[in-house]
Amino acid sequence: MNFASDNTAGVAPAILAAIERANQGFALGYGNDALTEAVEGRFAEIFEHEVAVFLVPTGTAANALAIAHICPPWGGVLCHADSHIATDECGAPEFFGGGIKLIGLAGDAGKLTPAAVQAAIERYSGHMPHQVNAAALSLTQATEAGTAYRTSDVAALAETAHARGLAVHMDGARFANALARMNVSPAEATWKAGVDVLSLGATKGGALAAEAVVFFDPARAAAMPERRKRGGHLASKHRFLAAQFDAFFADGLWLTLARHANAMADRLAKGLVGIGLRPVWPVDANLVFTLLPPHVHARLQAQGAHYYVRRRDHGTSGGGADDLLVRLVTSFVTTPADIDRFVAVVRAS
Amino acid sequence: MNFASDNTAGVAPAILAAIERANQGFALGYGNDALTEAVEGRFAEIFEHEVAVFLVPTGTAANALAIAHICPPWGGVLCHADSHIATDECGAPEFFGGGIKLIGLAGDAGKLTPAAVQAAIERYSGHMPHQVNAAALSLTQATEAGTAYRTSDVAALAETAHARGLAVHMDGARFANALARMNVSPAEATWKAGVDVLSLGATKGGALAAEAVVFFDPARAAAMPERRKRGGHLASKHRFLAAQFDAFFADGLWLTLARHANAMADRLAKGLVGIGLRPVWPVDANLVFTLLPPHVHARLQAQGAHYYVRRRDHGTSGGGADDLLVRLVTSFVTTPADIDRFVAVVRAS
Amino acid sequence: MNFASDNTAGVAPAILAAIERANQGFALGYGNDALTEAVEGRFAEIFEHEVAVFLVPTGTAANALAIAHICPPWGGVLCHADSHIATDECGAPEFFGGGIKLIGLAGDAGKLTPAAVQAAIERYSGHMPHQVNAAALSLTQATEAGTAYRTSDVAALAETAHARGLAVHMDGARFANALARMNVSPAEATWKAGVDVLSLGATKGGALAAEAVVFFDPARAAAMPERRKRGGHLASKHRFLAAQFDAFFADGLWLTLARHANAMADRLAKGLVGIGLRPVWPVDANLVFTLLPPHVHARLQAQGAHYYVRRRDHGTSGGGADDLLVRLVTSFVTTPADIDRFVAVVRAS
Amino acid sequence: MNFASDNTAGVAPAILAAIERANQGFALGYGNDALTEAVEGRFAEIFEHEVAVFLVPTGTAANALAIAHICPPWGGVLCHADSHIATDECGAPEFFGGGIKLIGLAGDAGKLTPAAVQAAIERYSGHMPHQVNAAALSLTQATEAGTAYRTSDVAALAETAHARGLAVHMDGARFANALARMNVSPAEATWKAGVDVLSLGATKGGALAAEAVVFFDPARAAAMPERRKRGGHLASKHRFLAAQFDAFFADGLWLTLARHANAMADRLAKGLVGIGLRPVWPVDANLVFTLLPPHVHARLQAQGAHYYVRRRDHGTSGGGADDLLVRLVTSFVTTPADIDRFVAVVRAS
Repeated sequence: MNFASDNTAGVAPAILAAIERANQGFALGYGNDALTEAVEGRFAEIFEHEVAVFLVPTGTAANALAIAHICPPWGGVLCHADSHIATDECGAPEFFGGGIKLIGLAGDAGKLTPAAVQAAIERYSGHMPHQVNAAALSLTQATEAGTAYRTSDVAALAETAHARGLAVHMDGARFANALARMNVSPAEATWKAGVDVLSLGATKGGALAAEAVVFFDPARAAAMPERRKRGGHLASKHRFLAAQFDAFFADGLWLTLARHANAMADRLAKGLVGIGLRPVWPVDANLVFTLLPPHVHARLQAQGAHYYVRRRDHGTSGGGADDLLVRLVTSFVTTPADIDRFVAVVRAS
Repeated sequence: MNFASDNTAGVAPAILAAIERANQGFALGYGNDALTEAVEGRFAEIFEHEVAVFLVPTGTAANALAIAHICPPWGGVLCHADSHIATDECGAPEFFGGGIKLIGLAGDAGKLTPAAVQAAIERYSGHMPHQVNAAALSLTQATEAGTAYRTSDVAALAETAHARGLAVHMDGARFANALARMNVSPAEATWKAGVDVLSLGATKGGALAAEAVVFFDPARAAAMPERRKRGGHLASKHRFLAAQFDAFFADGLWLTLARHANAMADRLAKGLVGIGLRPVWPVDANLVFTLLPPHVHARLQAQGAHYYVRRRDHGTSGGGADDLLVRLVTSFVTTPADIDRFVAVVRAS
Repeated sequence: MNFASDNTAGVAPAILAAIERANQGFALGYGNDALTEAVEGRFAEIFEHEVAVFLVPTGTAANALAIAHICPPWGGVLCHADSHIATDECGAPEFFGGGIKLIGLAGDAGKLTPAAVQAAIERYSGHMPHQVNAAALSLTQATEAGTAYRTSDVAALAETAHARGLAVHMDGARFANALARMNVSPAEATWKAGVDVLSLGATKGGALAAEAVVFFDPARAAAMPERRKRGGHLASKHRFLAAQFDAFFADGLWLTLARHANAMADRLAKGLVGIGLRPVWPVDANLVFTLLPPHVHARLQAQGAHYYVRRRDHGTSGGGADDLLVRLVTSFVTTPADIDRFVAVVRAS
Repeated sequence: MNFASDNTAGVAPAILAAIERANQGFALGYGNDALTEAVEGRFAEIFEHEVAVFLVPTGTAANALAIAHICPPWGGVLCHADSHIATDECGAPEFFGGGIKLIGLAGDAGKLTPAAVQAAIERYSGHMPHQVNAAALSLTQATEAGTAYRTSDVAALAETAHARGLAVHMDGARFANALARMNVSPAEATWKAGVDVLSLGATKGGALAAEAVVFFDPARAAAMPERRKRGGHLASKHRFLAAQFDAFFADGLWLTLARHANAMADRLAKGLVGIGLRPVWPVDANLVFTLLPPHVHARLQAQGAHYYVRRRDHGTSGGGADDLLVRLVTSFVTTPADIDRFVAVVRAS
């Protein structure tokens, strides 16, 4: 019963197999190999657009490099106050950005609204050179609350941002989960909706360690190779990063795995609702947040369930005053039996 | 005939097998797993010393994080002018160090001498706060010229540095190759000789992507977890980094693989000497540098040999005026047949 | 009728005279002159404590250097959301701090409360190395709202901070105004109340360009000379910075000038109250905030009054919906006639 | 007999008078005043070109801001190994530039040659993204050796740089001294010869603390206001910076003062030659370097002469083995009597 994070799962067999297959003969390092070239082509096909792609080993690297590339050191990045870049990356965007400012905005269910973004742009514009001016917008898709922006939401947010010259970044650590839920194309979910640069995660979705920074305007990626290298994020045996994405995309594996994780989250949410515990936020991806009474939490812990308790200040209401806000994350390896056992323990508590 | 780099080789089978074995069940992310803990213990055993270990995916990350941690932003790092940190990391140490200065020193065969280090310390001491003062010494072991410092060399250099308060870093991207050649213990080659922090590479030696920063005084590593995280170098599925080192160390695999690579370099050097081409520098590790007449180079290229031509300004002399300085790198996958074929082509040229 | 800022005033005659007096003969540069040494001694006398003092030309420099020196790059600085460091320094603390995070907290009348600070510390502690942890607290004295922390307020805030290991910085761009109002000693207002490092401003108080970073624990200032120098903030003809502080302190000039500015603010507040316009916040220093109906604002502008309109989102309430929040700043050169004329225009509007 | 530095002199009376004149009434801060606007216009007149001008208090600030603005963080700056930016600014360019690399080149008499620059460009080009590539050239005019580049020298160097896309910066801390010597126009000495951005110093030439960053292509200065502000280098009472340049330029004062300083250096050099001590390098500006026998040095010290002894490794030869390389700096306040007394002491030694 491990619902701690999707990164507690291992590697999807097909991806591990791809790594093994890639382990044949010699290949030039640093991305100068045939597989990398082929995979870059795959990105272009999948997103139906010319792209500049940079593979890196971690999601924090992808986000920090992407953001630093679209925001000057004296710029501000609008993001949700609970976004991963604001709360869980130990200041990586600030470091890579040379001292940029992340401007955390409130928003229900982990989502920003055009109105909130508009107000923040007004607040962080002008009064130069004294005030840091908003220069970029970063959206998380799916959000840290397990919700997903609809394509029209992204378009409205991006339009608000672009109207004032802000670039739009999407932290897609769980992009596949959002995509699988919405049933739209990768293009519709990104550049067609106004996303300028995407951090596309594969690790949480089943890879060993593989993330991609995808620029939809390759010209914007000028000097990104240098930024990645000096950040220490250019893998020498780069073919193995490429291999992971190769398998991730092959036969739609990324969406297959994401659909499974989403389905497990749905099953979990449904099971909890059946015993009176509603999800705090809509379950769009592979995360379920709910409020657990302390004795239920204690029982689950005793039974070996793993998950994280989050602060109650996330705009959650309802439930008992002592109830704990818990985050339950499913993944490509979660089984219906895992879910059912968890629900059974809760029911019995 | 691929002698371009040891990173053009793939992954050693035992290491890939370890990754597969580690792919069982759930494991907490970010290094909070049992395998990581066990591997950290292995480092302590192997180095016969309490250590603080930080695994990261790339060598540039290991070097930059280590150096930034022992040198203040206003400090200088003495290193060989041809060292990897000075020439091949796109300013990563400068970036992670907040604008430190790398001070490249000349030295035969890729090696620094105590006299050169002493002179540089004199040169970069005092006149504060105007002048950047030397704060650290970085040695590459084995060197970029394929030579290895003897333990007494390291001790003399470290003593020179320590006497003036400089910390000592060792870039051990090819540490195993040096160790295998010298037949000394890891402890003798590092902390017993005065090394404060080691970047220990496994990637060139057969891993997929795994390097370690090893502090021999754990107190010195305070806040290193934060530095690694904000650098984007904390792997979420960290068990797979640990698995690589687990296999690397098991049954002395790292030294076995290094000895093989070294032996192939020896065979290559011997073969070349047999036809009148002497190595430019002593062959202590898995690199052979030699001067090739242009027509020999052309023939090798035509036959599909891969290797890099380097600038002649590396203190090389001898050979014809038009001869090319070439770097030939062997690895754990190089075969005697590869060597013999290469030598045969040269001989026939 | 210039109430735009205290930096629109020129230089107090006594300070200009001191600059002229200092312009005799030769003096070693960079602070190695007798006047600098004497002035450093004056700081120790005035604050009744051993200090390490660093003179710099601007307040932004003083703040950014001080904060960067007490907060690691991966640390967070708790400050008021409307503080100068957060809103008016274009990211200087973030830049000098290597990517630190300023954490803006709400607080009435420009002031932080121990409860708010405590909550923020709880919020920004732990979950390392993922989360930026609070490492410093920065207080503005007098605040940007024109209020002053009482000594007991500072002590309570500093105690809250110190209990969790945070260092305490005070932005004293208008420290003299606060001091003059409270009638406490410089020692009581700073280190006795728990301030670790003070940015002491002279420029707004009548100097040409002179600010000081004052460490009350000189050991904490180690390497600050290097930090100042590489920030470009070590004046070559340093004697003229020293001369400004020499005159600023002589015969209590700093307090005399501050008392005058404060008295002018009092006169202004009183005048406005007399015609029904209450100050939005208590007038503790040389700033008066009030809500002006649009037609009054228009009349004042037509009559040549200079002042800034601020956003209404500063926690201000009352007044008409269209009223403008205006900031009126007095200085050492403001005259009663200036005040009376301004009030007369308002009255006549 | 103070020849320690031109910054040991005070402020030229006309400049101090201008500060006093500027101290009338109110003026908006941060450069939004009429005098600043007028002075910016003066720069355009003097340089016969549209310019973007940024006044700052120190030369280190001017250099670091300028260089950071024309060189990306992953770029290298070619400069003389003995240049002020490389040896005396405690890493300021590296800090402001986000970790750029200064590449110090050798050159007789403090000067770079096109051949040396060309070789360095070849050396630091390509092999991207691994190698830092040369992105800017910084020339010091007059040089740290007291020599001046001729206009044709600058043009040849700039042409070499521009041909490979490098921007050209000139550190003009003693620009007036060079200009006065060469008898060319400011335009000829800068943009007509290919200089892209100039750090124009007034402080060593007689100002209190005033330097200017001058961009000859204003478009290149985009976002420089933000860079200056967050560096803490935007003076609040900016009119006093403007006043200093106003007086510096008025009636050619800057050249008058520089000519005096140069003439004093000539007198000193001639006096020394008369007693057998030749200047080590041509005396083009206000610096005289010579080799002094130890007993002469001792006598001078005993007589209260102030000057600095420099390392002998500056490419100096001749003189006795124990002779000391001394730097003698004249300034606008140096008198013939100072010179004559110094020479007399040497003669008598």
